[in-house]
This record gives sequence, C-alpha cells and structure tokens, in this order.
Amino acid sequence: MKKLSRPNLHLALVHYPVVNKAGETIASAVTNLDIHDIARAAETYGARSFYMVTPLTDQTDLVRSIVRHWTSGNGATYNPKRRQALELIRMAEDLKQVTDDIRKEGERPRVVVTSARKSKNTVGYTGMRRKIADGRPYLLVFGTGWGLASEIIEKADFRLEPVRGNTDYNHLSVRSATAIILDRLLGCDR
Amino acid sequence: MKKLSRPNLHLALVHYPVVNKAGETIASAVTNLDIHDIARAAETYGARSFYMVTPLTDQTDLVRSIVRHWTSGNGATYNPKRRQALELIRMAEDLKQVTDDIRKEGERPRVVVTSARKSKNTVGYTGMRRKIADGRPYLLVFGTGWGLASEIIEKADFRLEPVRGNTDYNHLSVRSATAIILDRLLGCDR
Repeated sequence: MKKLSRPNLHLALVHYPVVNKAGETIASAVTNLDIHDIARAAETYGARSFYMVTPLTDQTDLVRSIVRHWTSGNGATYNPKRRQALELIRMAEDLKQVTDDIRKEGERPRVVVTSARKSKNTVGYTGMRRKIADGRPYLLVFGTGWGLASEIIEKADFRLEPVRGNTDYNHLSVRSATAIILDRLLGCDR
Repeated sequence: MKKLSRPNLHLALVHYPVVNKAGETIASAVTNLDIHDIARAAETYGARSFYMVTPLTDQTDLVRSIVRHWTSGNGATYNPKRRQALELIRMAEDLKQVTDDIRKEGERPRVVVTSARKSKNTVGYTGMRRKIADGRPYLLVFGTGWGLASEIIEKADFRLEPVRGNTDYNHLSVRSATAIILDRLLGCDR
C-alpha cells in the first residue's frame, strides 16, 4: 500500500482502568520494556506521541525518571536513538487528559481501542488504514494487564479487529500487539 | 493472502555471536521478556519451536529455570496459556546445534537471517512467505544486542529484508521485530 505521509496517529498505553485475570478492574504497574519497545515502534512508524496513562503518582514519577535518564541523562549520550524514541512519551492520568492534550493541536482525536477479544462492530485493518489517511487525529489505545476495561471500550469511536495469527492462540504481549498493529496500519513496505 | 497450514517454521534467538554498539562480537545476556514475548508470538503464529541460543551455562540454567516455572511450576497452574507458549522453547549452544536438532525430524532447515541493516541479496516478505509455503523446514534467526555477527549472516541460506516502518528510524526491539516479521510471513488476516 501507499506510504502515508506523517500519519496523525497518537498512542496511549492504559494502566487504569484495565482488567486482571479474574475480570476485575485494576490499576496495573508500569513495565519498563513497554516504555522502550512501544516508543521505539512508535518512532519507527512515525506516530506523533505515546501517552503512558496511569493515575498513580508513584508510577508517573517512575516513568518520568526513566524517560529523563534516556532523554537528558547519561542514557541520552550513550544512545541518542533511544532518546529520539523516548521523546515521544507524555504522561496522563486518564484518557480524557490524553484527548484534551491532543485537541490543543486543533481537533479532538477519534479514539480507536484495541483488544484481543472479539466484539461487535469492529473495524478491520484496511478500513482503519484508510481512515488514518484522512489526516485527522486518531488515538490508538492499548490496555495492559488482561486488557482495557469495558467502560473504555464502550466509549470509543472505533474498535479495531483483534490481531489473529495463524492459530487459535491469541495471547500476544501488548508490546508485540502494538508492533504488529502499527505495521498493519502504517507499514509502507508491504 | 492464503492461510498457511502448519508452517514448518522454527525460530532462534541468538545471544552469541552478536555485535555490541561498537561492532565488537560479544555474548549478550538473556532478557526475560524476550523469552515470554517471542514464545507467545511464536505460538500465535504457529511456529514449531523457539530456540534460545547461548553458549553460557549460567544463562542456559537461568532460561531453564524460568521455563520450568511456567511449564511445570506454579506458573503453569497460574497461567496455562503461558505454559503453552513456553513449551515451544528449546536450548542450544550454537546455531549448528539448532539445525542438527531440527534435522532429526527429517531435513536440515534453511537458515533465514534477519537484520535491521540493509545488505545485498535480501529476500522480501512476499517471496519468503511463498518459500515457507513449500512445507520444508525454515529456521528464522534473530540477533540480540546490536544484531547478528557477520559470520552468521554470511553463512545463511537467505537474508530477510529489514523491516521498514514509515520513517528512517529503524531501531525496533528484537521483540517487536519478531512479532512484525511473524505477522508478515504467517499472518492470515491481512
């Protein structure tokens, strides 16, 4: 497919509200490699920002200190490529703060949620790829833990079709799912 | 594209010989999330095995104890889906041990190396997808650190085209690259 010039796509990784194995709503802990892997994939595919969403101040402080290390601390000198990726990271307490922040650039983003579970009214990858090409802002939302809480899924503008591989097993890490979804929506050499 | 029935594809994650930032050949340390993320992606896309390649016995012992926890220890009861993925994991000291092991099932696998760096005579994703569909065994090899040492790349049967995103930035984690490559080679809903 045709290369998209500067997609107006933003990412959010949600740590609350998400569900645990038992289906209960929880706040998950931040995972260091989520920060790095998703920021690097976001930079590779030209996303404009990557929001880490958590209402917990200790978790926010932790992410900020990791990001600071790689964007202005010793890490920035050691690995400037990592700095470039981690500069995409923003912090937010909830999704509303994310959409408000993006809206400051002109327009409220359309919220696209991802899930490993099948649901009704999902949009496929070709369809979503076409939408993103309209140049309007889109916010692609990923859940940690066992996935986004239903209140987030229900309020979204679009639900993206789950990634299926070549089997019935659908337990990708959020890091892997993000990489695959960005490649499907924005990859230019396929 | 058409769904591949039971791809005869195996994965190897190499920790020696790989290069560091300065281009020197080193043995990298095993990363816990490589084990989990790549095993889960391998199971999602129906790969037949996932070899962790390291000559270091302490690293081999570490991987074995992690795998044991999730396949027969408390982890197996807590999360049977994780068990299913980690059961794909095999240990090997070098790539020769991997190809010898796969050969026991009938035929030496063709070795396909991956790299973020451009090189001559690479095979594209459509071409490699077609090859894999011939039913013969293929071994897809990924490097940790700053990538596979040239001695591994030069001896391979095929070099897979690097993953490009939508920018000039090509610094995906090996976890993200593996997920994207499996999706490109084996994904059935695209």
